[in-house]
Amino acid sequence: MEKIVEQGLLYDFYGPLLTQHQQEIYEACIYGDLSLAEAAERFGISRQGVHDLIKRCDKILKSYEDRLGLISRFNETNAKLEDIKQLIEKNKDKDGSVRLSAEESAEVLAGLRQIEE
Amino acid sequence: MEKIVEQGLLYDFYGPLLTQHQQEIYEACIYGDLSLAEAAERFGISRQGVHDLIKRCDKILKSYEDRLGLISRFNETNAKLEDIKQLIEKNKDKDGSVRLSAEESAEVLAGLRQIEE
Repeated sequence: MEKIVEQGLLYDFYGPLLTQHQQEIYEACIYGDLSLAEAAERFGISRQGVHDLIKRCDKILKSYEDRLGLISRFNETNAKLEDIKQLIEKNKDKDGSVRLSAEESAEVLAGLRQIEE
Repeated sequence: MEKIVEQGLLYDFYGPLLTQHQQEIYEACIYGDLSLAEAAERFGISRQGVHDLIKRCDKILKSYEDRLGLISRFNETNAKLEDIKQLIEKNKDKDGSVRLSAEESAEVLAGLRQIEE
C-alpha cells in the first residue's frame, strides 16, 4: 500500500518524462491495479517483461526525484500552507471575519514569502 | 537579455537533469557570461562545439518544461501568493495587526487551497 502511494506520487510528478509505452503500462498497473498477468495479456508482452518495465520505471522516476526534489519541495510547501491556513482559521470570528495580531500577520507574510522562494 | 533570463530560469529548474559536462559549460556561458571563444578556450573544445552544446542544452531544457511545466506552475503560484500578500497588506493597521472581512478571509483561504492543488 505504502509503495503504491509512493509510486502514484512519483508518477504524478514525473510521469510525463516516461515514454508513451512506459506510461501506458505503468498507469495500468499502478492506477488501474492490473496484475502482472493481466497487464502481460493486455499489452502482449511477458509477465517478466511487465515486471521489468515497472521496476525500470520506478528507478527512472526516483532518479528524477533525486535530482529535482519536486515531491520533497511539494511536501514542504503544503506543510507551510497548512500552518498558514490553521493560523487564519484559528482567528476566525463567528461572522467569518479574521483578526490577526501584528505577530500573527508577520508570521503569515513570512510564510508566504518562504513559499515563493 | 530576455533570452538570458529565460535560459537562467530553465536552468534553475531543470539544470540538474543535464550531464555534469553540460552543466559546467552551460553555467559558465549563461551565468558566468563567458563568450563562446572564452568558453572554448577554458574547456578545450571548439567555438562551434560550445555553440552546439548550448543550443542542445536549450532544447533539452525546453523539452522538460514542455512536459513538466514547472516554470508555468511556479509563475501561477507566485501570482496567487502575490494576490494574497497584497490583500493582507491592504488590511494592515498602523500597529501591524490585520482585519479581514468574511469575504476577504474566504478569498485568502481559497487562494491557499488553490496553491495546494
